[in-house]
Amino acid sequence: MRFIIQRDRLVQSVQDVMKAVTSRTTIPILTGIKIVATNEGVTLTGSDSDISIESFIPKEEAGDEIVEIKQTGAIVLQAKFFSEIVKKLPTDTVEIQVENHLQTVIRSGKSEFNLNGLDAEEYPHLPQISEENVFRIPTDLLKVMIRQTVFAVSTSETRPILTGVNWNVENNVLACIATDSHRLALRKARIQSENDASYNVVIPGKSLNELSKILDDSNELIDIVITENQVLFKAKHLLFFSRLLEGNYPDTSRLIPSDSKTEVSVLTKEFLHAIDRASLLAREGKNNVVKLATIEGSAIEVSSNTPEIGNVVEQIQAQEINGEELKISFSAKYMMDALKALEGSEIKISFTGAMRPFVLRPIEDDSILQLILPVRTY
Amino acid sequence: MRFIIQRDRLVQSVQDVMKAVTSRTTIPILTGIKIVATNEGVTLTGSDSDISIESFIPKEEAGDEIVEIKQTGAIVLQAKFFSEIVKKLPTDTVEIQVENHLQTVIRSGKSEFNLNGLDAEEYPHLPQISEENVFRIPTDLLKVMIRQTVFAVSTSETRPILTGVNWNVENNVLACIATDSHRLALRKARIQSENDASYNVVIPGKSLNELSKILDDSNELIDIVITENQVLFKAKHLLFFSRLLEGNYPDTSRLIPSDSKTEVSVLTKEFLHAIDRASLLAREGKNNVVKLATIEGSAIEVSSNTPEIGNVVEQIQAQEINGEELKISFSAKYMMDALKALEGSEIKISFTGAMRPFVLRPIEDDSILQLILPVRTY
Repeated sequence: MRFIIQRDRLVQSVQDVMKAVTSRTTIPILTGIKIVATNEGVTLTGSDSDISIESFIPKEEAGDEIVEIKQTGAIVLQAKFFSEIVKKLPTDTVEIQVENHLQTVIRSGKSEFNLNGLDAEEYPHLPQISEENVFRIPTDLLKVMIRQTVFAVSTSETRPILTGVNWNVENNVLACIATDSHRLALRKARIQSENDASYNVVIPGKSLNELSKILDDSNELIDIVITENQVLFKAKHLLFFSRLLEGNYPDTSRLIPSDSKTEVSVLTKEFLHAIDRASLLAREGKNNVVKLATIEGSAIEVSSNTPEIGNVVEQIQAQEINGEELKISFSAKYMMDALKALEGSEIKISFTGAMRPFVLRPIEDDSILQLILPVRTY
Repeated sequence: MRFIIQRDRLVQSVQDVMKAVTSRTTIPILTGIKIVATNEGVTLTGSDSDISIESFIPKEEAGDEIVEIKQTGAIVLQAKFFSEIVKKLPTDTVEIQVENHLQTVIRSGKSEFNLNGLDAEEYPHLPQISEENVFRIPTDLLKVMIRQTVFAVSTSETRPILTGVNWNVENNVLACIATDSHRLALRKARIQSENDASYNVVIPGKSLNELSKILDDSNELIDIVITENQVLFKAKHLLFFSRLLEGNYPDTSRLIPSDSKTEVSVLTKEFLHAIDRASLLAREGKNNVVKLATIEGSAIEVSSNTPEIGNVVEQIQAQEINGEELKISFSAKYMMDALKALEGSEIKISFTGAMRPFVLRPIEDDSILQLILPVRTY
């Protein structure tokens, strides 16, 4: 194997596939990046066996030569060193050459690295996915949907299925749902598809977080293929594979109350900052719990009390309050997470009593909702 | 105590004095910030008993009212909460009022915090320093001198005196010297003084690091007062006290070789980047050791070899090489630290053999030098 490549393109691709590489793996070869040079270009692969990322660097693009292939071939190089080295090379082009079996030379200007490579034949094969049922969604929308749901997955392994996000496709609508059983995030959007296949799978939260880091903010369509135990995201020159979580995701639809007894509309930012302030003292207490009470004159009061330290109380003018008076306590962290995930300058909170879950929605937008379970204190 | 203050000024002062506050203290009241309101303005104090910082906010400045004093007095508030609270308050002005003994109310807009304060009488007194012998130095120069020396202090407590920087004032020249016994950094500069008092003290490296973070990059003069066991830095509205280290600092002058057998001049950045690349593999080995050898045609070769991973070799064109051929090994980290501390685009390295300390200096500037002890490998 021998090729000369534009350094910037190599650095970018290495950075992308590094997102899948971990040093904590039981399969030593997965600490490496697989490099394959064909007559079409260079393909890099990184994997931790849960997530696999493949980045392709074409020989040329828009008439520009990006890679000059001198000899095809393949090698696996230690990801940790290879990624650091390419970042710090002195010149704009890099030559990579496999000599004497696995010895690999990296040349750039007057700098020459010799790395001990590993046999690319030993590298695990990526899942083979037939691309019959593809659906599509703009990249930037996908990133938003991930951001608005993935924070609500469970971080505890007691119910592993809850560490993933439930992706439900039906009638060309994708619904993403995450819950840790104390709160729930739901976001829906239309997808583009040639058929109307249905899916109901659970994607690990970690995979979605890594995917989100790699994707750009363009509105180009990304292809999504779901199989029995894998999901594949296909962007330009990039393949992202993730295994799916096994097991049945709980039916969350009955958790979401359809009626409400008190409805409060507030400006999102003003409310978020008040909760943030109230949580400054509450954080030291056990549960970071703050209180909310409706008061006369369509205002609400946010407060918290930690006797050893002090207390805080704040009034916020609501845009509108309808229904019964209410006093309720909840986790400030969950509330702030939910408010940050919602879009729109104004939100409506629908309560059905101090002991029942309540729902946050942007005004006049039913594609997203955030649900939070209250805490018993009043 | 009761006053109304501009929030931005309060936030800035709190941030400054926070640099001295630690949560790991055996004196509980030092986890707090002391706030004193007088008819002249508000003074904040933070201390960990090694470092004490006092920040003064005047009642008015350039005709602008900054603080409105309603009632003089003093209180100590938990630094951790107070600093977080003031940063997040909703309005541009803040009212702080001590009610019922130690209960303190912080009001901003419709937000009201109640904090349990501590008795300001219990707060330790700052050292009393008579300001007879003051010398002065521009603030930005002081910051440069700290940056160029403090990194070389020892991080080990086996010889506590080496965890400080030796400040030596003689004939109106300040010499700052730091060494961890494997390398040494020296920087000299003229000071401004009404007398020609001499000092030879050792200031803890940690104190200088914290001081450097607080000072701005202006060229305004800062007053420095050295006493038997304290040093005081006086900037505008800011007092920074540090205790001095006890004990005798080793005589370092005899460490610095006066002659040389090989002199190499190189471009600082080019050399730094080559060392950085060579250290990528060497870091994994025991000591992060790289090798340097003069080669024919006034070039040098930088290399490192870590058999399990690979090796790297690079040639650098020297600006000039004089004297004997040389092969030498040294810590890449020490070399990079030294190169980053030196100013100037070109440096001269003076070697007196593979086993002797060598010295780095900018071309034609004898106010600074960096010395490194080689490692035995050749």
